[in-house]
Amino acid sequence: MKSSSETSAFEEHESVVRSYCRKFPAVFSIAKNAILEDEQGREYIDFLSGAGSLNYGHNDPMIRSKIVEYILRDGITHSLDFHTSAKKRFLLAFDEVILKPRGYNYRLQFTGPTGTNAVEAALKLARKVTGRRNVVAFTDAFHGMTLGALATSARQSKRAVAGVSLPDVVRMPYDGYFGEGVSTLDFIEAMLFRTGSGVDIPAAFILETVQAEGGVNVASSQWLRGLSTMARKYGVLLIVDDIQAGCGRTGTFFSFERAGIEPDLVCLAKSISGYGLPMSLLLIRPDLDRWEPGEHNGTFRGNNLAFEAATSALDYWRDRSFSHGVAFKSRIIVDHLNAIRASFPAHVRSIRGAGFIQGLVFDDPRIAAEVSKAAFGEGLIVELCGPTENVVKILPPLTIEPIVLKQGLTRLSTAVSKVLHASLERVPDSVSCSA
Amino acid sequence: MKSSSETSAFEEHESVVRSYCRKFPAVFSIAKNAILEDEQGREYIDFLSGAGSLNYGHNDPMIRSKIVEYILRDGITHSLDFHTSAKKRFLLAFDEVILKPRGYNYRLQFTGPTGTNAVEAALKLARKVTGRRNVVAFTDAFHGMTLGALATSARQSKRAVAGVSLPDVVRMPYDGYFGEGVSTLDFIEAMLFRTGSGVDIPAAFILETVQAEGGVNVASSQWLRGLSTMARKYGVLLIVDDIQAGCGRTGTFFSFERAGIEPDLVCLAKSISGYGLPMSLLLIRPDLDRWEPGEHNGTFRGNNLAFEAATSALDYWRDRSFSHGVAFKSRIIVDHLNAIRASFPAHVRSIRGAGFIQGLVFDDPRIAAEVSKAAFGEGLIVELCGPTENVVKILPPLTIEPIVLKQGLTRLSTAVSKVLHASLERVPDSVSCSA
Amino acid sequence: MKSSSETSAFEEHESVVRSYCRKFPAVFSIAKNAILEDEQGREYIDFLSGAGSLNYGHNDPMIRSKIVEYILRDGITHSLDFHTSAKKRFLLAFDEVILKPRGYNYRLQFTGPTGTNAVEAALKLARKVTGRRNVVAFTDAFHGMTLGALATSARQSKRAVAGVSLPDVVRMPYDGYFGEGVSTLDFIEAMLFRTGSGVDIPAAFILETVQAEGGVNVASSQWLRGLSTMARKYGVLLIVDDIQAGCGRTGTFFSFERAGIEPDLVCLAKSISGYGLPMSLLLIRPDLDRWEPGEHNGTFRGNNLAFEAATSALDYWRDRSFSHGVAFKSRIIVDHLNAIRASFPAHVRSIRGAGFIQGLVFDDPRIAAEVSKAAFGEGLIVELCGPTENVVKILPPLTIEPIVLKQGLTRLSTAVSKVLHASLERVPDSVSCSA
Amino acid sequence: MKSSSETSAFEEHESVVRSYCRKFPAVFSIAKNAILEDEQGREYIDFLSGAGSLNYGHNDPMIRSKIVEYILRDGITHSLDFHTSAKKRFLLAFDEVILKPRGYNYRLQFTGPTGTNAVEAALKLARKVTGRRNVVAFTDAFHGMTLGALATSARQSKRAVAGVSLPDVVRMPYDGYFGEGVSTLDFIEAMLFRTGSGVDIPAAFILETVQAEGGVNVASSQWLRGLSTMARKYGVLLIVDDIQAGCGRTGTFFSFERAGIEPDLVCLAKSISGYGLPMSLLLIRPDLDRWEPGEHNGTFRGNNLAFEAATSALDYWRDRSFSHGVAFKSRIIVDHLNAIRASFPAHVRSIRGAGFIQGLVFDDPRIAAEVSKAAFGEGLIVELCGPTENVVKILPPLTIEPIVLKQGLTRLSTAVSKVLHASLERVPDSVSCSA
Repeated sequence: MKSSSETSAFEEHESVVRSYCRKFPAVFSIAKNAILEDEQGREYIDFLSGAGSLNYGHNDPMIRSKIVEYILRDGITHSLDFHTSAKKRFLLAFDEVILKPRGYNYRLQFTGPTGTNAVEAALKLARKVTGRRNVVAFTDAFHGMTLGALATSARQSKRAVAGVSLPDVVRMPYDGYFGEGVSTLDFIEAMLFRTGSGVDIPAAFILETVQAEGGVNVASSQWLRGLSTMARKYGVLLIVDDIQAGCGRTGTFFSFERAGIEPDLVCLAKSISGYGLPMSLLLIRPDLDRWEPGEHNGTFRGNNLAFEAATSALDYWRDRSFSHGVAFKSRIIVDHLNAIRASFPAHVRSIRGAGFIQGLVFDDPRIAAEVSKAAFGEGLIVELCGPTENVVKILPPLTIEPIVLKQGLTRLSTAVSKVLHASLERVPDSVSCSA
Repeated sequence: MKSSSETSAFEEHESVVRSYCRKFPAVFSIAKNAILEDEQGREYIDFLSGAGSLNYGHNDPMIRSKIVEYILRDGITHSLDFHTSAKKRFLLAFDEVILKPRGYNYRLQFTGPTGTNAVEAALKLARKVTGRRNVVAFTDAFHGMTLGALATSARQSKRAVAGVSLPDVVRMPYDGYFGEGVSTLDFIEAMLFRTGSGVDIPAAFILETVQAEGGVNVASSQWLRGLSTMARKYGVLLIVDDIQAGCGRTGTFFSFERAGIEPDLVCLAKSISGYGLPMSLLLIRPDLDRWEPGEHNGTFRGNNLAFEAATSALDYWRDRSFSHGVAFKSRIIVDHLNAIRASFPAHVRSIRGAGFIQGLVFDDPRIAAEVSKAAFGEGLIVELCGPTENVVKILPPLTIEPIVLKQGLTRLSTAVSKVLHASLERVPDSVSCSA
Repeated sequence: MKSSSETSAFEEHESVVRSYCRKFPAVFSIAKNAILEDEQGREYIDFLSGAGSLNYGHNDPMIRSKIVEYILRDGITHSLDFHTSAKKRFLLAFDEVILKPRGYNYRLQFTGPTGTNAVEAALKLARKVTGRRNVVAFTDAFHGMTLGALATSARQSKRAVAGVSLPDVVRMPYDGYFGEGVSTLDFIEAMLFRTGSGVDIPAAFILETVQAEGGVNVASSQWLRGLSTMARKYGVLLIVDDIQAGCGRTGTFFSFERAGIEPDLVCLAKSISGYGLPMSLLLIRPDLDRWEPGEHNGTFRGNNLAFEAATSALDYWRDRSFSHGVAFKSRIIVDHLNAIRASFPAHVRSIRGAGFIQGLVFDDPRIAAEVSKAAFGEGLIVELCGPTENVVKILPPLTIEPIVLKQGLTRLSTAVSKVLHASLERVPDSVSCSA
Repeated sequence: MKSSSETSAFEEHESVVRSYCRKFPAVFSIAKNAILEDEQGREYIDFLSGAGSLNYGHNDPMIRSKIVEYILRDGITHSLDFHTSAKKRFLLAFDEVILKPRGYNYRLQFTGPTGTNAVEAALKLARKVTGRRNVVAFTDAFHGMTLGALATSARQSKRAVAGVSLPDVVRMPYDGYFGEGVSTLDFIEAMLFRTGSGVDIPAAFILETVQAEGGVNVASSQWLRGLSTMARKYGVLLIVDDIQAGCGRTGTFFSFERAGIEPDLVCLAKSISGYGLPMSLLLIRPDLDRWEPGEHNGTFRGNNLAFEAATSALDYWRDRSFSHGVAFKSRIIVDHLNAIRASFPAHVRSIRGAGFIQGLVFDDPRIAAEVSKAAFGEGLIVELCGPTENVVKILPPLTIEPIVLKQGLTRLSTAVSKVLHASLERVPDSVSCSA
């Protein structure tokens, strides 16, 4: 890997909290669509995409030219929540390109430019509007790291560091949590809404339609519709955290379009700016838009470079060809993953996902870890997810060229093969050793 | 003001939570140092500076050329917490220009790029390291809007919308809270550390050395040293939230340099990128840097445009001339404000502040509101602060040209005069009416 | 009913919080085993038994003579947690008569003399010993009204009046909550102990083996054993709240004897003194008895009249004849209830219970309410329970004479008949009306 | 002391949580007014009085005859919240003897029969009626051990064992906390009610007018009136916890009569039954009596033996001679304590108290501990209090015969002399040793 002189600045000056760089210890310098280049000129194919923030790849040239132009003519960069021309362009384009064609009329709140901030705003608004405290979150959920969002997140190691109780959230089983074919909806209804259950009526459900960090768990459309119906039946709000699964990741702009539901609140972040620039949005059903002015705010909620980029990125959605391309390429991914699975049926438990988020599920987390490591050796960046980190998460840019995609998948196959063959060879040894 | 056609996009599509744009209802388009220009070509002098995010003005040309160059050569934009060349440059420059000369050896944590996220990280780390839950925050404090930071913030209207209890924080009186000459330190020590007080021993104090939103309340150096000594005596961490007062706002890079203290944790955001780009930092005393990898994370913690900008902005601090310029110009401000006060002793209660954050304190919040409004009519953007919003907060860019500064101050005088003369004329009427 | 002059003292001077007296508005004066007598000399058969506090009936003569003797020789009455002769007698007798024969070696903690106080002590100790915050409580549970115990109780109307969040408790489904034949154990294990579930590992389970207020829900022995095994597997403590179901109510001294389990902590109150005198106990597995002296205390934890009474009451358990008598008479109850059910299959959904706690479950809560009211008219005191109050709870003293028991059951039948015949007569009318 | 055979039953079978019996390791058997007798016939004078539960001494003969008579005629013992003749007698007598003559018209709520339960009920009602969460409690306060009451208590060791956060309570300085002559009222008003303070407006103040466990801290009448006025000014309820200081302990029935204030809610317990029997009361201003039926309940809230005893005990208050006797004897106590102080000015810091609760304040807690121990050797039971346990708390029955009182005080003097002379002799040695 890298010599210590290259990374010593990080070791000396940056907090030990840093994590991705431990697994992928290059010093990256240049990036273009799905290709990253490190300081030594080595190239990597990026199947992580900024944890879903780079659906349109690194440094999309169309967007790039727009923001450079904006900067050069001294367009206002930082504007709090002033009116700006850049924000106006985004508001109108988002309405025209995204909302109207889908029949939505959400109001947009520009929260602090992190996903967790959009989640915090959603939770506040849901509690304010309903006058209730309790919020339902799901097993394996991930919604962010600030205290309110953290309370809805499931990962134990992240929760423990809060150092305080994480109250006013009740946990319910996500679709499939009890195994295939077992609907969790009846359970949820009985636990939440039957008299005497002892669970306080919630203000809202908050959920991802595809749990990314949680292990690429895909809620069925039927389950999503059932949950939406239940929410309406009992006057509970439905918040979809579309931060990682939205902006086209699953093939449609919103991940919930496939289910035909209309959440009351939608959180967007990550890929919304299209260029990896910090930006977050909360979409609000108009009649729920009952904030007082400034009741939730944040210094960087007016990041105009991001607005310019986001407006430009919406051009991808002006016709259906982009969605079609995503669908086409996602079949390449799934076919390839299935081939891997077919080769190693004893180790690969399943393939699951939607569109451009796919999981290669191993039985043994150690194998998954070795695959990720070996892939990096092959020049591929691919991360793990799931509560035991046993799922290799395939998350390329939606804009990846088919040839690069295939190249990346080949590198993945090579990595899997190397690990599993080595593993297969090692296993007998270790067996004989212990014999 | 603006015709409805210009702002209708905001009214139709943006949430009612928007606030600054209600007071300053222009649609801004172009910005350059202290000058904002709206869509109709009207110019405004900016005495708000992105609520302290634009210490180096809008679109600083030196920084601008660096980020355009970075974009054009496809420097990696979004990088999670990967090592990148841009981050490395920032780490080394921050150490060389800021930390080393001041004798500090903090580790840097790149949190989610909002101030509130840096505060949340600081609170988590303080609780983790000490094993305690309770945190001390101060009267009139503002530390952010996500649930953990909100619990430490004092503004009632912001707290109420949480909709849940904000536990594990105890409130103590800030310096001067009981009036001039009354130290609050003895009180704090008695309430927190005397056996039987009934207040659980805290993990940390969190404070601003100058409370900006709280009304431009300046803690004395003596009080800061006393608090620091008390913290050390009882093994309690000292967290300085230098988000608004740091990065030179008070004349030195860190606001606490004047007191000669060394906090255990320092939160930076707002002006740290120098260009208004979202970026936040937590500075950590090395022996307290006990995070597990990824224990606190965030999608946008690797905002390389901000790193490039921040590195460039540090050039301002390579010699003392910048500080001297700030000191020189701050005297212009204070002199001007004192002149205003001398003209209207019956309405202006006091002038207070440090360096480039100054408050013109009115007795009557309605007068302050009218002054801000009248100033906007004169082409000056100046905001209010304080719990009753009776303080006009003077917060120009540190880089403002003296001539523009004086022009802005003149506009402020004009606004004050107009309001108070009108007020003076009105008052007798109303007196006679009630007679 | 009563003339207002008889009850006006209560209406004028007692808080409106009073409740039982609204349903049974006599002014009671004299009591003897299962018979209550009001000020006007009218007699009532008591099928409520002080909500389970009078397992040995009102004013048991054997116990009565002991406490009168104790009072007359000026035995110490109130003793904090001093050693007293009366407490010593109880400690030794409880060990000899109850613990030793059953193979238990619990330590006894005398908590404040209310059940809720024993529950609070159990929760504290479980959290202290495990170092965890979270506690698992069950649907339809009732454990008391003070804040810690209330958080584990399920009844919504009781919870709401807390006015604050009730954190650090997670709710799980009791045996049978999802219907007959559906074990909830797998669900509980998956929700609590699977990595990534998002539910913090609990300190303890707290449960009643028969939920009394919750509707006479009887956990199966198999479920209790399964839960006990799960608790041990994961190092979670098992707390049985035997306040209402213990002291022989189900036929054995502890309600959990039928399941052959050994809880880590057992809460006793209600009938433990045998005479209705306030007394509570926490039984502690010796190795968990890690309190510091006085860490949990209470002024009335040394109620020596109650100790004398409790020692005397233990005589009932010196041979098996008492249990046999309870079993014999409980068959009379069940047979009678089944006969009622057979007569009104359309209204009585089921009979359920264990020993001397039996529930007559109506489909319609209004019918149940009318039955209770009509029974009072017949001279029988019988209460409702369950989340919708649709269960008539049969809870006579264990010592009730068979003839009085039968008389009471006859009055119940009469009440049911009167209500349902009236109802049957009314129903066709209403049907025809709506036709 | 006792041989192990006498106390082995406790060591083997009772939890290690027991505390008083460690300091006073006799096995008590018989009690009469201020005299306790142990199993070996040794007599002790009781200056602890059941921690204030035995204001009328042990086994008051007048009350004794009433309860024996009640038991012998089978008066109902346990009655939930049914109307009973015994409760009616108490309601009417309490109104006639206590409330009416003092101009009060409180409603009475019979809570679970522990002081902590009355406090929990008061907190619930205050939060319900005001719709607010926050409650103000004071430094050094003690209000009970169940979770809601514990949150208002100050003793750190008791709080820590909760194992969870104790939210929704804010701590304020009691009268005198900052030293003599410093009123804490201005501070309290500024911290709670000034805009921007960051402390949420409370539902209630809860306080003892004399802090017993907290160290015999006596709030001045002026301070109590000031607090009461402040409460009314801001619509905050005033809850007086008169559990230890009430029922005549300070010379008047309610401890707050001296200040002429009328709290909104008053908690009574300990001596209310007059015989040490568990009983608690919440007095409620009639317009605040907004409970729903059964919203707060408890199994033992109908303890009729206690009602009978309490009614009988009220006879002490039918004329002023009882108060006069208390005043007369309290002068004997104070004079004697002052004499002790005069003899040992270097060790006794002060004498403080009101009526029959007096504190002998030592500088050194170790001296206080030795005095209590030596007193027990002399045949006197006297306890410590205060956050460092440096205060010897003098708490005899109000009914103590003057000759026994003087005898007890003489034993106290003897104990102090023995300890301090030994101490004085030791001190020079240790001084010379270290020289």
